[in-house]
Amino acid sequence: MDQNNLEKLKEELSELYHLSSAVSVLHWDQEVYMPQKGSDLRAKTIAEMSGLIHNKFVSPQFGKLLRIAKKDSDDGKLSDSDSCIVKEVWREYSREKKLPLEFVKELAELESKAQGAWTEARKKSDFKMFLPYLKKIVEFKRREAELVGYKDSPYDALLDTYEPYATTKELSLVLEELKKFLVAFLLKIKKSKVKISDKILKGSFSVEKQIEINEAIAKKIGFNFDAGRLDVSAHPFTIHFHPDDVRMTTRYDEKDLFSSINSTIHETGHALYEQGLPAENFGTPLGESISLGIHESQSRMWENIIGKSREFWKYFYPKMQKEFSAHFSRISQEDFYKAINAVKPSLIRVEADEVTYNLHVIMRFEIEKDLIEGCIRVEDLPKIWNDKVKEYFGLKVPSDALGVLQDVHWSGGMIGYFPTYTLGNLYSAQFYNTAQKEILNLEREIRNGHFEHLLNWLRKNIHIHGKAFSAGELVEKVTGEKLNSQYFIDYIKEKYSAIYGIKG
Amino acid sequence: MDQNNLEKLKEELSELYHLSSAVSVLHWDQEVYMPQKGSDLRAKTIAEMSGLIHNKFVSPQFGKLLRIAKKDSDDGKLSDSDSCIVKEVWREYSREKKLPLEFVKELAELESKAQGAWTEARKKSDFKMFLPYLKKIVEFKRREAELVGYKDSPYDALLDTYEPYATTKELSLVLEELKKFLVAFLLKIKKSKVKISDKILKGSFSVEKQIEINEAIAKKIGFNFDAGRLDVSAHPFTIHFHPDDVRMTTRYDEKDLFSSINSTIHETGHALYEQGLPAENFGTPLGESISLGIHESQSRMWENIIGKSREFWKYFYPKMQKEFSAHFSRISQEDFYKAINAVKPSLIRVEADEVTYNLHVIMRFEIEKDLIEGCIRVEDLPKIWNDKVKEYFGLKVPSDALGVLQDVHWSGGMIGYFPTYTLGNLYSAQFYNTAQKEILNLEREIRNGHFEHLLNWLRKNIHIHGKAFSAGELVEKVTGEKLNSQYFIDYIKEKYSAIYGIKG
Repeated sequence: MDQNNLEKLKEELSELYHLSSAVSVLHWDQEVYMPQKGSDLRAKTIAEMSGLIHNKFVSPQFGKLLRIAKKDSDDGKLSDSDSCIVKEVWREYSREKKLPLEFVKELAELESKAQGAWTEARKKSDFKMFLPYLKKIVEFKRREAELVGYKDSPYDALLDTYEPYATTKELSLVLEELKKFLVAFLLKIKKSKVKISDKILKGSFSVEKQIEINEAIAKKIGFNFDAGRLDVSAHPFTIHFHPDDVRMTTRYDEKDLFSSINSTIHETGHALYEQGLPAENFGTPLGESISLGIHESQSRMWENIIGKSREFWKYFYPKMQKEFSAHFSRISQEDFYKAINAVKPSLIRVEADEVTYNLHVIMRFEIEKDLIEGCIRVEDLPKIWNDKVKEYFGLKVPSDALGVLQDVHWSGGMIGYFPTYTLGNLYSAQFYNTAQKEILNLEREIRNGHFEHLLNWLRKNIHIHGKAFSAGELVEKVTGEKLNSQYFIDYIKEKYSAIYGIKG
Repeated sequence: MDQNNLEKLKEELSELYHLSSAVSVLHWDQEVYMPQKGSDLRAKTIAEMSGLIHNKFVSPQFGKLLRIAKKDSDDGKLSDSDSCIVKEVWREYSREKKLPLEFVKELAELESKAQGAWTEARKKSDFKMFLPYLKKIVEFKRREAELVGYKDSPYDALLDTYEPYATTKELSLVLEELKKFLVAFLLKIKKSKVKISDKILKGSFSVEKQIEINEAIAKKIGFNFDAGRLDVSAHPFTIHFHPDDVRMTTRYDEKDLFSSINSTIHETGHALYEQGLPAENFGTPLGESISLGIHESQSRMWENIIGKSREFWKYFYPKMQKEFSAHFSRISQEDFYKAINAVKPSLIRVEADEVTYNLHVIMRFEIEKDLIEGCIRVEDLPKIWNDKVKEYFGLKVPSDALGVLQDVHWSGGMIGYFPTYTLGNLYSAQFYNTAQKEILNLEREIRNGHFEHLLNWLRKNIHIHGKAFSAGELVEKVTGEKLNSQYFIDYIKEKYSAIYGIKG
């Protein structure tokens, strides 16, 4: 084998990761602190940097280094970890090489225009304004699938960008099962005599105090503020420059304390994953997160399974009552617990509760899969959308803005992204089930404000591996089983049967 | 001429400026918001980016484009502005090409080590700890001068990095004249019966209110917060990403309101220059500031000539009295004016007043010039330093920390930088003298809080040109005369004779 070649490859790779890290700083600044007038030239700076990274990645020099390493790997001459690096880089490289530069540029331009059109269309609640753009995007994405190649469904080729190695076939099975359960279970909740409203959560909460409590929660569950920050942006997000510098954002609503707390816990879940990646492997796939689904499993475990549990609030609620005594002193812990877990079918995905959320995702998955497989036409989307909302939620969609136009994803060309949200929920329940078995008295620890056991378990079993395993491999390695929806179904059934007094 | 070649050159150049802009964002974030643990990998990211920019700049492709353009320019085939672009890029390019990569790397490493050693040496006030590093730095800098080449003094080659086209010979003449005046004038102030202390300025000032007043002042004198920010950092600085995004910082001291106000006005001067550069020329030298000296002329005009004038405070003092009434209600405007202009010879440059500041700079210039010309030895610096302080200020230096070890510049290899501070003062007085003639009732406008006349004058006469003129050319173009110290001398003499009751 060619050791020198491998070293050179790693050097080039490390440089690419550092350049990407710089782009992330530019993005973070853009969302958090950049003054208004800075946007045009910032967009150009980011475009220049991205072009540079792309050119470096697909350059003949890099290609040569990678091909030699690939051969060494195929010949079994590399160590396991080097093989994994080469495999993952090769995966991305092959994909990028298959997409002609002209195609990539045209698509980027189309997406940029489509996002503008979508914003306008949503404002006017008029799908027809967005239709020609979405048609083109679907065309481009189908072309992308053909260029990249796939085994069974062209949707595989798109899914693969966000959830590597996942297949449409397996995913469909898992989501179909989940859907059946959720639709039926939602009916039971609707029929229950127990009615819960989250109105008691609304009030007036000083932003200053909200900042304090959000920082305290993030810190308590394990976010290292020496290696990251919590700032404010219009849409909460987490971005990493490397494991020693992970930035997350939230937003504060004077009337709604839980808007910030939920999103902070969610982002902290993402951030803990990034802070838990092995810093010594930064600059290779072994220092990188596995997939969006696994990422989401971390954010959703903290946000929902932990952050909306009785145990979590057993610890935090008394503190919050003290901090916002005017509001919470007369609300019991039990009423509070129920309120944060109120189930209410809604038209908007991002406002959905734990039970209904995945139905939103599943219908989007079904639609985009059918679009890419060519089974439905873009012009029929509003009707298809509204029919599904009726079928799954029993709701009538009053306008496109509250229906098919609500999400940004499709206008940005992000087809294949949605299912990773639900995969995150499924992974999270399956992981958590194992964690409960392996960590002594986990619930008690959480009740007492000890989150380090769970965090260490996640670090040891998930974070530390980087991309050494695919999502599917990791789930099997950690839980002893392939991904399945049963753990999430059981979790929902148990938790919400208790809350809504549902028997059997 | 080769139009296509010129276009390509400009494209490459624009890319280089965008990459540098990205590096500036990384630097800004590092100083202002980066969490502690982020520093190691950030340093690497910056190093990778800087290496990339360097390699791109000295690449054969870029060299070829530039050489063809240079020939077209020499043959008189380019427009004036294109010629200027090529001239300035060629200037930098030739310099960088003359320095072998190995030399640049070694020097960077030495500087990094020397800065650590200097920090330690200053802490222990022990010049000997720093001596071996400074010796090497002087050696390297002399070598740099030989590699780069020069006409008269090797110091020319170093000065040229910070103040292009300036010469040691001309500079020496101007500074010598200034020194003579200052030393004599300082004696007169010392002998004056008028004694002024700035103690009345010290007190207790809430940081929140300080932030408000600093932002208000910056905004009032013309800083556009839609195209920039004011944040906090350990050492105040201004950095630009492009004219539409200029970031400045200040620092707040609860006991000393003027520490923040002075530095904010100073940085606003820098920032106004950057915001005033022609955005349409971003990506070429025509969108760039001329030199450190011209930059400093802007910061010092606003900080000193304007920001410490009677007129300025006629407008702002009543507002400050209202804001901090507990402190200022019993201090008259005249006493306040005198206090902010108190002259007090001090050991430390950065604490110096307008009159003594330039003596600090001049003695550093004399020393570093002699070091580079080989007339003095590094080991003799403490004695040379202390003798000069005695001679110019009449003060005894009690320790190296308060003497030869006080500035960071030499440890960072910045030899040739100091004189730009004084050049800034000289330019500022000469420019201001012209502005006074050309702007109707300038003093009255300032008294009434109208700074836009001066700012527009600076924009039209200085900012808008980018690097179209050298500093020397610009001064002549704007003021009709070559740079000379008389305007600054007259300004100091008039202002401080009045304050200290000095006649003749």
